[in-house]
Amino acid sequence: MTRTKKVPPVAIRRISLYARQLALLDLNNITIVSSTELAEACNVNSAQIRKDFAYFGEFGIRGTGYYVKDLLSELRKALGLHKQWRLVLVGAGHLGTALAGYLVSLNQGYIFVKAFDRDPEKIGRYMGSIPIFSVENLEQETKRIKADIGIIATNDGTAQECANSLIRGGVRGILNFTPVKLKPSDDIQIEQVDFSIRLDSLCYKLS
Amino acid sequence: MTRTKKVPPVAIRRISLYARQLALLDLNNITIVSSTELAEACNVNSAQIRKDFAYFGEFGIRGTGYYVKDLLSELRKALGLHKQWRLVLVGAGHLGTALAGYLVSLNQGYIFVKAFDRDPEKIGRYMGSIPIFSVENLEQETKRIKADIGIIATNDGTAQECANSLIRGGVRGILNFTPVKLKPSDDIQIEQVDFSIRLDSLCYKLS
Repeated sequence: MTRTKKVPPVAIRRISLYARQLALLDLNNITIVSSTELAEACNVNSAQIRKDFAYFGEFGIRGTGYYVKDLLSELRKALGLHKQWRLVLVGAGHLGTALAGYLVSLNQGYIFVKAFDRDPEKIGRYMGSIPIFSVENLEQETKRIKADIGIIATNDGTAQECANSLIRGGVRGILNFTPVKLKPSDDIQIEQVDFSIRLDSLCYKLS
Repeated sequence: MTRTKKVPPVAIRRISLYARQLALLDLNNITIVSSTELAEACNVNSAQIRKDFAYFGEFGIRGTGYYVKDLLSELRKALGLHKQWRLVLVGAGHLGTALAGYLVSLNQGYIFVKAFDRDPEKIGRYMGSIPIFSVENLEQETKRIKADIGIIATNDGTAQECANSLIRGGVRGILNFTPVKLKPSDDIQIEQVDFSIRLDSLCYKLS
């Protein structure tokens, strides 16, 4: 599967959705899926699925469908999920706990190596199997464990400082769950998930 | 401020961001802001801000800037946030707790009326000031309190059943924080915030 042309972000998001659905099928020992079945499970139409796959090459068996394991493996490769990504989490509150629990449960090549918090009550404890360190050591610990990605889920307005420490610590990407709009930085990819903006958008549509 | 043409979703998201930034300025008793200052705080360029505002009409004082309170009020009207939105939350775990805490803290016209959970340990208790009810009563309670929007933050794969109850209960919009892709439904607006897809997208960019 080689990348043949520029893939729009929205297609990447659908590919991620297909991959998650295929992982579910695989978990249930389903070996073959038709594009119609996959489309239905993902609430898209099957023409869309074929179009999205075409960005990465040809696969599927005419009249039969797709081999679940093979397709999953190809899509993961396409997304860059065939390698393991080392994550650090900043903010071990409710949001951080929910995110880490969910992302670990996906079993998708993401490894949460360490969590960081400001609260002395939390430092030295564990979230599941993830040890919690002081946010004061964020830069040097990020560097030491060679983290790829930092997830920011703080609730105290310190997201930019945390991002600065993560960047100095050598991460290549940041997923920001706080409302703080982080300053762009060279060679760092930043994605922001902004809850209130999504709720505002919903209200706009309803108005 | 009248809607003059179709506003693209991405402009709506920026308007929401500007409104949040203006609310912060207002909170700090700042009365006038230039488009350059607002642009800097939001990490966009000022031409973009003027373009986004133009969807809704003309305002600002040439050479001076914008009156913070007036502009905030206009943008809130544009987003439909001048009315109060009654929200119910399904799922009172870590994620639901984080979301409710954050959205309430914005003080933006959102009222969390009730939360629902399956866990008997949680039912009858409160999340902050929000009472937690049994999810079995979701449909009738949603109807009774005339909720506008349901937020789904469950972690047990029951998102579609919850959505069905919310829709029968009369909500007009659903904000779905679970990975379950909800079936579209007539007259219901659904927005999904999918964490793992955003993380996958980030990894794709880094690959």
